[in-house]
Amino acid sequence: MKDARLTRKQTPSHTSAIAITDRLAIGTEAITLIAGPCAIESREQMEAVAAHLAPSPIQMLRGGAFKPRTSPYSFQGLGRAGLEIMRDVGRAYDMPVVTEVMAVEQVEAIADCADMLQIGSRNMQNFDLLKAVGQIEKPVLLKRGLAATLEEFVMAAEYIMSSGNPNVVLCERGIRSFDTYTRNVLDLGAVVALKQLTHLPVIADPSHAAGRRELVASLSKAAIACGADGLIVECHPEPDRSVSDARQALSLDAMTALADSLPAIAAAVGRTLPATSAPLPVAV
Amino acid sequence: MKDARLTRKQTPSHTSAIAITDRLAIGTEAITLIAGPCAIESREQMEAVAAHLAPSPIQMLRGGAFKPRTSPYSFQGLGRAGLEIMRDVGRAYDMPVVTEVMAVEQVEAIADCADMLQIGSRNMQNFDLLKAVGQIEKPVLLKRGLAATLEEFVMAAEYIMSSGNPNVVLCERGIRSFDTYTRNVLDLGAVVALKQLTHLPVIADPSHAAGRRELVASLSKAAIACGADGLIVECHPEPDRSVSDARQALSLDAMTALADSLPAIAAAVGRTLPATSAPLPVAV
Amino acid sequence: MKDARLTRKQTPSHTSAIAITDRLAIGTEAITLIAGPCAIESREQMEAVAAHLAPSPIQMLRGGAFKPRTSPYSFQGLGRAGLEIMRDVGRAYDMPVVTEVMAVEQVEAIADCADMLQIGSRNMQNFDLLKAVGQIEKPVLLKRGLAATLEEFVMAAEYIMSSGNPNVVLCERGIRSFDTYTRNVLDLGAVVALKQLTHLPVIADPSHAAGRRELVASLSKAAIACGADGLIVECHPEPDRSVSDARQALSLDAMTALADSLPAIAAAVGRTLPATSAPLPVAV
Amino acid sequence: MKDARLTRKQTPSHTSAIAITDRLAIGTEAITLIAGPCAIESREQMEAVAAHLAPSPIQMLRGGAFKPRTSPYSFQGLGRAGLEIMRDVGRAYDMPVVTEVMAVEQVEAIADCADMLQIGSRNMQNFDLLKAVGQIEKPVLLKRGLAATLEEFVMAAEYIMSSGNPNVVLCERGIRSFDTYTRNVLDLGAVVALKQLTHLPVIADPSHAAGRRELVASLSKAAIACGADGLIVECHPEPDRSVSDARQALSLDAMTALADSLPAIAAAVGRTLPATSAPLPVAV
Repeated sequence: MKDARLTRKQTPSHTSAIAITDRLAIGTEAITLIAGPCAIESREQMEAVAAHLAPSPIQMLRGGAFKPRTSPYSFQGLGRAGLEIMRDVGRAYDMPVVTEVMAVEQVEAIADCADMLQIGSRNMQNFDLLKAVGQIEKPVLLKRGLAATLEEFVMAAEYIMSSGNPNVVLCERGIRSFDTYTRNVLDLGAVVALKQLTHLPVIADPSHAAGRRELVASLSKAAIACGADGLIVECHPEPDRSVSDARQALSLDAMTALADSLPAIAAAVGRTLPATSAPLPVAV
Repeated sequence: MKDARLTRKQTPSHTSAIAITDRLAIGTEAITLIAGPCAIESREQMEAVAAHLAPSPIQMLRGGAFKPRTSPYSFQGLGRAGLEIMRDVGRAYDMPVVTEVMAVEQVEAIADCADMLQIGSRNMQNFDLLKAVGQIEKPVLLKRGLAATLEEFVMAAEYIMSSGNPNVVLCERGIRSFDTYTRNVLDLGAVVALKQLTHLPVIADPSHAAGRRELVASLSKAAIACGADGLIVECHPEPDRSVSDARQALSLDAMTALADSLPAIAAAVGRTLPATSAPLPVAV
Repeated sequence: MKDARLTRKQTPSHTSAIAITDRLAIGTEAITLIAGPCAIESREQMEAVAAHLAPSPIQMLRGGAFKPRTSPYSFQGLGRAGLEIMRDVGRAYDMPVVTEVMAVEQVEAIADCADMLQIGSRNMQNFDLLKAVGQIEKPVLLKRGLAATLEEFVMAAEYIMSSGNPNVVLCERGIRSFDTYTRNVLDLGAVVALKQLTHLPVIADPSHAAGRRELVASLSKAAIACGADGLIVECHPEPDRSVSDARQALSLDAMTALADSLPAIAAAVGRTLPATSAPLPVAV
Repeated sequence: MKDARLTRKQTPSHTSAIAITDRLAIGTEAITLIAGPCAIESREQMEAVAAHLAPSPIQMLRGGAFKPRTSPYSFQGLGRAGLEIMRDVGRAYDMPVVTEVMAVEQVEAIADCADMLQIGSRNMQNFDLLKAVGQIEKPVLLKRGLAATLEEFVMAAEYIMSSGNPNVVLCERGIRSFDTYTRNVLDLGAVVALKQLTHLPVIADPSHAAGRRELVASLSKAAIACGADGLIVECHPEPDRSVSDARQALSLDAMTALADSLPAIAAAVGRTLPATSAPLPVAV
């Protein structure tokens, strides 16, 4: 990876923490948990999620306003209305939010509403979009492509950084394989390798990797154990009614139970988890 | 593929030919050959290519002005200057041209200069770009993603068509696999299946699939034999000096030798190849 | 592939034809077609197949007596009774037969009854079995493993040859991939590469690659067009009643129609197909 | 997996521990660590390994006497001489031993010398061998094939069990993928799924999965965290001089350091690790 000029770890102890807000950074000793539904469906749904998660160690909210869907006829997300819901709920519960940006023209609006912009797997080599998020300052959560090599993944981060934005967090979310039992294969060897090759934080998405909710908790523990700096996990007030990816969403109770199970694993590898994510909400 | 509303073959004999110019369509009884360098490097290079190919059965020119590259520090293409070269050379030799569009903001400029716009593998699910090329009338060459299922590929075409542009040609260009001897694996079963599932023309790109020039001619014959409506092949006046993908480019002599070897295969499956691509050039 | 001592092509024109009988060799100018059911189910079944195929250009019969099955509770083949059926029917119709050997202890019995022994995909690196068939003289049809690299495939042939048996024919039969539309992906780039790297004949199995009968004829043409020395195709008197792999078996009429469509393709690449496989049968 | 008659988990709490010796079982609350070189190279080598590992929590020795090698010209293992070394060293240090069986004819000799027989990835569907180890009582360590689906893996265990031997331990050891940075991809989702689908113990082999020693420790922690019942790890007194797989072997110090790092992870998921593997050796 001779061209990994800005992403490369310069010394064994070289690591970068990426500040999300004044009080939260990804890539410190503390593990960062991000949770929320696949798609933002309504204000009520996001309120229910945030209210349930806020008292837990989960610190950030996720939720898609613009949804990449295989079919043009599937629900494409609430769009800007979804962004506003997410912004409002995040502020009310004092939880920073991350949401996916699918197009250059969405960058500004999303940067206004979200604390972190996600580049999804399908867009990992949408170089135009990488350059666009490289021209803002908001942190970017870059997901690995479905069949991206580690070099391609690191070079995608290099596109963002060489465009001017150093605030990149990598996310392993499962790669395509021949077996259909799981939706994808969570490549934790990649998490370990990326932590050795780059100075960037690396988190894992066990939900999209597994595609089955009954596998998510155990894979989450595995990811923390091998050095991931955080997790992004899908949950929903009524998982079976989720408009997308219902099969992999955790219930809110399962989500907080998962979060509560992680401090012991984190401690075993010299990391910590916050006791709670946020102060009480004030209003929405 | 219940959502393949516009792409689906309605009856066994349902096929669509896509007009590229008044005199050329892809998806007829005649096979369409497209050839040219990976990247447009100079006017001299494109002139040399066109002059060599024009008297052959090769009917269209390819060449990248905007190049998707793994590294941000690799040559990114000549950009708009490359488009102008391609347009001028194409007109001079009366050969329609196809070139890749990587960003929404490039669509208009490319549509002005090219006869067909290519969506590359990395952008097969760049839905924003698919919708943008769905709003013009110029034909679109849609390449299969490196790890795209047939359903995802067909649905990407459906995005373009449901946005208003019915002129889509599919291109199988090799999928990722575990073996490193070839760059990718040319999935001709996909070509056969796509011809059965959809009414759209399907062409093959043996160059990117093989990644080795010594495999290209035989794979080209295989593609025609199984029903492909055309080929897109990389060639270069000095292959080893190609600025990108040098290992897979044919020399110009090898390119026309390949073209000359195909009429017999085409005839064996009830297809034809034109004797020559174009009248003599007038000027550049 | 530094260790490809016996398999490596020494000069560009170095090719070996493997004699199956006094009158039939694989790897000559003539294409060899092998056809028959997945499993030998009964004498009547094999009689029906042979009677139908004998007057066609199909020269060899296939059929499994010992069947590798994912589940221990699935039909495992007729075993030695199946071998006898195959031997008798082959002799009666003057068609050489090939059948799979799954265990060292079966080698002798199969070599007594069959003209060629097949090593299946699952056993491509069963080195014990490779060495065992390396100690007989009967030709061996070596199928590529589901996820075998070309080097592993060639080295498996090297195991047989270095054990003393030079009569090896390679067979590409599809590799595992992420898409589920086809059962596997027929890797014709491998066929082309193997013809360039080794002096051994290479045939293709479009049936196991496709897993869908409607794709088999077109893939067969593609394989011949790119230089395969033959094909092995599954067919059955009543495909939908096949005890295994029913979805991919051709009817006997479709099988002979496929064979009749191939001479034109073969001629287009400088090869031939025999007009008929065999003289009339004498008795069973 | 309707045919998983003997392997299927009957109730959520249904688990089987497989006794290796009177004092050791795999699949209990206690994690089992197995370590040793890829190949048995000499008595001195195995002595050095055992002497170093015996005082650690590592309880079993591994080492290959019969080695499956891609090339017939590579070192094939010491064979029966290697078995005797392993048996002697194991007894001297009171550490049970596991070694690979590659052929039916080796089963008896290996069962005489080893406490557990390993079926390697290449032989996961060598049904003849599966049936043979199904007819003894010694426990079998069944490794997942390089491209085996979970169903195929479970059904391979079903072959052993339906032949009469209920003592099967499953081992995930990495699957083939498109990326070449790691040798294979450790599929921990498979470990989690297999623990849910079957009642059998499941261990992980991070060495063959990663193919790079610097990834092994972190992947080991991940495997324990997600519920693996043990690990099998390669180590060598002089890793860079290992006759095979040198790149992935840990030094003996790194091996015991890894073992010493695992009790905290085990405790975090309600498991234990023994403080030491064995009493002091008596003699060899």
